[in-house]
Amino acid sequence: MSTNIPIEKKVLSENDRLAAKIRTELTDRRIVALNLVSSPGSGKTSLLERTLETMRDRLQMALIAGDVQTENDAARLTRAGGTIVRPLITGGACHLDARMVSGVLDELDLSRVDVLFIENVGNLVCPSSYDLGEDMKVVLISTTEGDDKPLKYPSMFRRSSVMVLNKIDLLGTSNFDPERVKANALQINGNLKILEVSCTRGDGLDEWYEWLAGMVKAKKKR
Amino acid sequence: MSTNIPIEKKVLSENDRLAAKIRTELTDRRIVALNLVSSPGSGKTSLLERTLETMRDRLQMALIAGDVQTENDAARLTRAGGTIVRPLITGGACHLDARMVSGVLDELDLSRVDVLFIENVGNLVCPSSYDLGEDMKVVLISTTEGDDKPLKYPSMFRRSSVMVLNKIDLLGTSNFDPERVKANALQINGNLKILEVSCTRGDGLDEWYEWLAGMVKAKKKR
Repeated sequence: MSTNIPIEKKVLSENDRLAAKIRTELTDRRIVALNLVSSPGSGKTSLLERTLETMRDRLQMALIAGDVQTENDAARLTRAGGTIVRPLITGGACHLDARMVSGVLDELDLSRVDVLFIENVGNLVCPSSYDLGEDMKVVLISTTEGDDKPLKYPSMFRRSSVMVLNKIDLLGTSNFDPERVKANALQINGNLKILEVSCTRGDGLDEWYEWLAGMVKAKKKR
Repeated sequence: MSTNIPIEKKVLSENDRLAAKIRTELTDRRIVALNLVSSPGSGKTSLLERTLETMRDRLQMALIAGDVQTENDAARLTRAGGTIVRPLITGGACHLDARMVSGVLDELDLSRVDVLFIENVGNLVCPSSYDLGEDMKVVLISTTEGDDKPLKYPSMFRRSSVMVLNKIDLLGTSNFDPERVKANALQINGNLKILEVSCTRGDGLDEWYEWLAGMVKAKKKR
């Protein structure tokens, strides 16, 4: 498939140019932008549901919910209340790109937004290659997936700044070892900040909320 | 990214040509070829481990274990014993393609093989576009992932012939509804054969083994 490589490079450099433009605009507005990435079913939508509900009085949030098909996630998140939520259906594509995000941002009123969440397509490979203009990628991994995933899908863990280990309420139901997944993740990226949560039971979410609030505070000061 | 489309089509048609060649060779040899696809962590490797252990006296099996990085899966499966197991590391690519598979097949002694398993990269999107010359795709989904996945990632369910619902031992730990996931899957593809299993506890695996043995028997007769 060597014929594909020059075109791929061109597409990626166009994407990077547009992502840089998005980043400048969001930074000018002092908006924290987080690109949430994971396998399908690790709990991105659940984490966002809890966050929108809990933080709505403290932060102005906007959310772009990416999916290959269906607006299910956007509908779940709109029910969580109060926040600007827009679906972004890729229609088959395996990742979001900066052009898709830019198209949605053009239609949003960003004037009072503190945090923009971009929920990527559930895919632990392809979204790692596409900068969306975010401040950082937040990768989720759940305790039902297997503790060697950071080694098997290293690019995503290398390019993320935060790893949220979700479904800690299900520890003990399989041979998943939380210490091993953390060691594997840190072997790939020693700078990863790691949070351990259960989005169904609520464990660890306070630390996530405080981290988020701290990010917003820091960005306002810049 | 319209510039990418003609090249993408060319790559896919080259892939299809090579996949057809693989299919002819495997069919001439009366080998059943199954392409196992799923999200990361749905249990492809666990299902294969159990199958290699249990069926080794009844079937001659070969296995190509695809991964983005690491030979972990191939190592786990080699320990399961007795079978020809080859790792296939994509080095970053998000799917296997027919050229990669062809390269591995050229080095295998297929003379006595009944079943070839191809364990794809953990990715519920991209592998759906790449024919590997298999008889059919077997898609795994686990009860910890979310019962709307067939609607959100329809292409994979449309192009698969069998859906294995894994981790049924974990039903009840979340709001995952097995009836809903089956209805969603059948809405996308009414011809899907659905098997419900727990690879850790063993539930439902006998039906999988019998189905597999039946496939081998049917192919020998052709």
